Amino acid sequence: MEPTIKELASGIDTIWVLLCAALVFFMEGGFAFLEAGFIRAKNSMNIVMKVFTDSTLGMLSYWAFGFGIMYGLDKAGLFGTSGFFMEGNLEHIQLRVPIYAYWLFQAAFAMAMASIVSGAVAERMKFSPYIIYTVLAAGLIYPLAGHWVWAAGGWLYNLGMLDFAGSAVVHAVGGWSALAAVMVLGPRTGKYNEDGSMNVLPAHNLHLAFLGTFILWFGWFGFNPGSSLSGLDMNIARIAVTTNLAAAAGGTAGTLFTKFRYGKADPSMAMNGALAGLAAITAGCAFVSPLSAVIIGAVAGVLVVLAVAFFDRIKADDPVGAIAVHGVNGTWGVLAVGLFAQNGGLLYGGGFKLLGVQALGVVSVSVLAFALTYLILSALKKTVGIRVSVEEEFEGMDVIEHGMPAYTGLVTSPLYDVDEAPLHAAAEDRKPALRLS
Amino acid sequence: MEPTIKELASGIDTIWVLLCAALVFFMEGGFAFLEAGFIRAKNSMNIVMKVFTDSTLGMLSYWAFGFGIMYGLDKAGLFGTSGFFMEGNLEHIQLRVPIYAYWLFQAAFAMAMASIVSGAVAERMKFSPYIIYTVLAAGLIYPLAGHWVWAAGGWLYNLGMLDFAGSAVVHAVGGWSALAAVMVLGPRTGKYNEDGSMNVLPAHNLHLAFLGTFILWFGWFGFNPGSSLSGLDMNIARIAVTTNLAAAAGGTAGTLFTKFRYGKADPSMAMNGALAGLAAITAGCAFVSPLSAVIIGAVAGVLVVLAVAFFDRIKADDPVGAIAVHGVNGTWGVLAVGLFAQNGGLLYGGGFKLLGVQALGVVSVSVLAFALTYLILSALKKTVGIRVSVEEEFEGMDVIEHGMPAYTGLVTSPLYDVDEAPLHAAAEDRKPALRLS
Amino acid sequence: MEPTIKELASGIDTIWVLLCAALVFFMEGGFAFLEAGFIRAKNSMNIVMKVFTDSTLGMLSYWAFGFGIMYGLDKAGLFGTSGFFMEGNLEHIQLRVPIYAYWLFQAAFAMAMASIVSGAVAERMKFSPYIIYTVLAAGLIYPLAGHWVWAAGGWLYNLGMLDFAGSAVVHAVGGWSALAAVMVLGPRTGKYNEDGSMNVLPAHNLHLAFLGTFILWFGWFGFNPGSSLSGLDMNIARIAVTTNLAAAAGGTAGTLFTKFRYGKADPSMAMNGALAGLAAITAGCAFVSPLSAVIIGAVAGVLVVLAVAFFDRIKADDPVGAIAVHGVNGTWGVLAVGLFAQNGGLLYGGGFKLLGVQALGVVSVSVLAFALTYLILSALKKTVGIRVSVEEEFEGMDVIEHGMPAYTGLVTSPLYDVDEAPLHAAAEDRKPALRLS
Repeated sequence: MEPTIKELASGIDTIWVLLCAALVFFMEGGFAFLEAGFIRAKNSMNIVMKVFTDSTLGMLSYWAFGFGIMYGLDKAGLFGTSGFFMEGNLEHIQLRVPIYAYWLFQAAFAMAMASIVSGAVAERMKFSPYIIYTVLAAGLIYPLAGHWVWAAGGWLYNLGMLDFAGSAVVHAVGGWSALAAVMVLGPRTGKYNEDGSMNVLPAHNLHLAFLGTFILWFGWFGFNPGSSLSGLDMNIARIAVTTNLAAAAGGTAGTLFTKFRYGKADPSMAMNGALAGLAAITAGCAFVSPLSAVIIGAVAGVLVVLAVAFFDRIKADDPVGAIAVHGVNGTWGVLAVGLFAQNGGLLYGGGFKLLGVQALGVVSVSVLAFALTYLILSALKKTVGIRVSVEEEFEGMDVIEHGMPAYTGLVTSPLYDVDEAPLHAAAEDRKPALRLS
Repeated sequence: MEPTIKELASGIDTIWVLLCAALVFFMEGGFAFLEAGFIRAKNSMNIVMKVFTDSTLGMLSYWAFGFGIMYGLDKAGLFGTSGFFMEGNLEHIQLRVPIYAYWLFQAAFAMAMASIVSGAVAERMKFSPYIIYTVLAAGLIYPLAGHWVWAAGGWLYNLGMLDFAGSAVVHAVGGWSALAAVMVLGPRTGKYNEDGSMNVLPAHNLHLAFLGTFILWFGWFGFNPGSSLSGLDMNIARIAVTTNLAAAAGGTAGTLFTKFRYGKADPSMAMNGALAGLAAITAGCAFVSPLSAVIIGAVAGVLVVLAVAFFDRIKADDPVGAIAVHGVNGTWGVLAVGLFAQNGGLLYGGGFKLLGVQALGVVSVSVLAFALTYLILSALKKTVGIRVSVEEEFEGMDVIEHGMPAYTGLVTSPLYDVDEAPLHAAAEDRKPALRLS
Repeated sequence: MEPTIKELASGIDTIWVLLCAALVFFMEGGFAFLEAGFIRAKNSMNIVMKVFTDSTLGMLSYWAFGFGIMYGLDKAGLFGTSGFFMEGNLEHIQLRVPIYAYWLFQAAFAMAMASIVSGAVAERMKFSPYIIYTVLAAGLIYPLAGHWVWAAGGWLYNLGMLDFAGSAVVHAVGGWSALAAVMVLGPRTGKYNEDGSMNVLPAHNLHLAFLGTFILWFGWFGFNPGSSLSGLDMNIARIAVTTNLAAAAGGTAGTLFTKFRYGKADPSMAMNGALAGLAAITAGCAFVSPLSAVIIGAVAGVLVVLAVAFFDRIKADDPVGAIAVHGVNGTWGVLAVGLFAQNGGLLYGGGFKLLGVQALGVVSVSVLAFALTYLILSALKKTVGIRVSVEEEFEGMDVIEHGMPAYTGLVTSPLYDVDEAPLHAAAEDRKPALRLS
């Protein structure tokens, strides 16, 4: 028996959403290896375990609570009230794809937000409190922000905020949560000196970090175009192009800016530049021209270098640059929609209305995320405790928390791990390529 | 000229099956790195070469013989008799996708079954006999089991056995073949002591193992939903959700169970827990509810920890836990269909009929796989020999078999490789996190 | 409102092209890790940075110039003249997918061609001139060859040359450009000795190389089938099958040929054999039978082993075998179409006409690529300089160019890096498995 037109349309949309969900899920591997590569070997397994927990326990949390809070029946524009455990009333969600496909795509986004935070708290946050945070990040923080911006009835949705695939909902929320977490947690021992100078705690394996970067970029082919939720929306081609051009411009900017500024093309900034471009274009990918995407990405690639330096200057110790990549550039991306949107953008004669809504929106979800994360981690700090001891920090979290190092079969370098002296030395020797000399 | 409805339907199904086949093929990389990471550096290239051979020679074998035996014209419900080299009579296969697309998807499954065995025989099985085994695994063992369960006319197919994507046909068959192989081959030198105690031969690179895990999970988005063979079957969304929830529950269970039991969250059990959940849900992903999927996965995540300990207790030395993950949990997954299937499951008032068929089915294909693997390896043992010498085992198979170590440019740790003393020491020190203290 | 048949068809084709573009883009990660793994640790970050630059700056160059030169309005069959920055007249391109989707798929191909060259110049070419070369490779060299063969009006297109997915346009062009680059650049210091003997500068991390190989093979599921540009063209199933069978045959040939010839199955040749099979089948995947694909791939798997040895004999120092894999086997693949094409092939009674056109075509684009690369690099050599000093070569390009080694946290092996002595020793010890004893 032949399918109907309606069935064919559902089929196209469903395979599109499911395959894009697979790409977004794979980004968890990207986060894991990017973050592991950027930190010291002795803590690198612990960070992968944290990201893996975002993918496992985080998914269960989004299934139990998150989805209902995000897309359940709206209450006062603030949160959803149905659909917990994917049960109950979800009829208000009008889709051409099965609700299950929609849920899976959203669940992969929830994990991503949590995994953004994991990088910033690397090398010193205990595993147990992190597990609790992940449950709340994927089950409460992200869903609340998502409800405000994306759910029918959400107050920012009603104001007409444009955040196509989540520069605000995923990246700003993740990045500013990371800042709050870093403030509650404090910097890694040995990172900053009394005299205000800082030490390099270098990326232990840049190939691992690049693997993460390539996986994340690959996953973004699902993250942004997939957010159309339809393979029949021909705008997906434009979305894919703007997404990639912004990444290309960001990576180019990060590479060339560090080369001209420091004399060496910094791999960590080439990676973070591309990721910053991706985080920034995520809001506007469906609304801006390819040329605007290049501009948005190039600005992001420079912003991220300056932001990483800035956050180190204020002693907000973020080992992977998550705040700079996702917080700063997620925010930049939301504002950029107000400037470059072909329909309503300031530079396209749309005046300040959209720009104002965008600013209000990104500030609101960022404050929400910052505040909730600050409260949750402060509460955990006073109760179970959130930080390993200095001794454990020097021994490394992998053996302490998981009983085994990441590389039993390879000899790891003692440098940077014994005491602070070599750190100073290293900081001298290798200044040119420091992220932020 | 506009396409017809029929052509549109074929197009949707074909791109779905081809893209899912790509995902399933990529799982070979997942097996390679999971297994390589879980064993010692000195043998880690050899295992990757074996998995790569599953992908190359194994594919050729499935093309020449396997597909015909699996899906050719049925003979007595036991095997197929046509379609060798994709030639000859295949008209009895009624599909909306080209036979080539169907073949490719199935070929990727055949490789996967062979690669399950490769992990269990790691660190001691010679390369040449392994090559021969791969040809027979992908060309004979897997196809026979597949014919019984999936081919029109197969005797278990006729009994109504439900194994949607292969908990029995791929995982139980691979896992119990692995047990047979381990029994014929014997344990690694230095693994077990006279006094019944055992030594830790630890995972040399957990990042490599996690890379394999993320790739395998990613590939499962094709493995299970793709088995629908149609992008117009809206059940694919449910299949994707149950698959992911089971993986999430399994990973969570493996992580928390080891944390509570041993005081440390064991990375190898976090990974194997997720993979066990995936192996278990593969049979029922299309037939059970999300909640049932979570239960099935959680049980799998605990089962795998106990099973790994059990197989070590009986001195069945499986360096990567393939028997526990695929054998035990593939079997659990097939039985779980008899309990949780919304249509016919015991817990849904379906009585014992389906459960009985499932039990008969999984036992039958498992016995088939165990027996054939046992016979084949015993024959190879008596002829070409299947095991490297103790000297070669200490030197490492990479240099012996392939003339080069995996890491020429990195210094590998002599620990665990020189003699047994450090093994005991290590076993003492690191008991809490041992897979099986 | 229900979509029309036309809209459904466009949807199917567009999601197909976009998802295949994602797979092809991911191949950049494959090139990066394959090349990094095959060279010494001290230069391995630099090569990844070069490939990453192909993906970022290379994409921008293809956006600005490349696409217009390749697919703009034809001028004399030689180059395009419109569509720069994706603006202006592109109406002559008749597609069912949005031009943006088409552009993105093509852009990923342009990067791939540039990344083929990066491997051959590894361990000695400066970063800055490489950046300039990448801009010209993706923006000029590849587009010119592509115009000749694939653009309506291109002179080879008009002659009826068959190069379905680019054995000529991507692989021969990349491979023979690599030869030109190697000739201008000269071999790595310490590679060849006065007495004509050569030293082994071994692959520093074969797991990294295998990761690259698995990613590249995975990406080829998009590279070849996606070149149909339509998910409604049922030939995509055959294309996927021939592509995979050729890879399988090539990998099998590389493995068994080295095992029989040198006594050890060489991992680097198992990988390069599979990649050679893929490069060779890329022209004919849509036109040949599965059996022919196996033959084409098997020949490629042997050819690559002989070619690697040959180019070392003539002192064309190609650290990753790019010339042998892409140049030799891309060329072989184009000629193979003239032999095995079911419609027009010599072995199918088509006579010599097609074979002649194929030969003319592949020679023409190869000469074009060789000449342009030779000229560009010679000009750069005389101006900015293209090669690091011997001192820098010994210290390693990662620290020199990027201020940091790839593996700060792991101890790298000094072997092969201090002076030539250990090289000789190594060459003696490990001859059996050398790529080219």
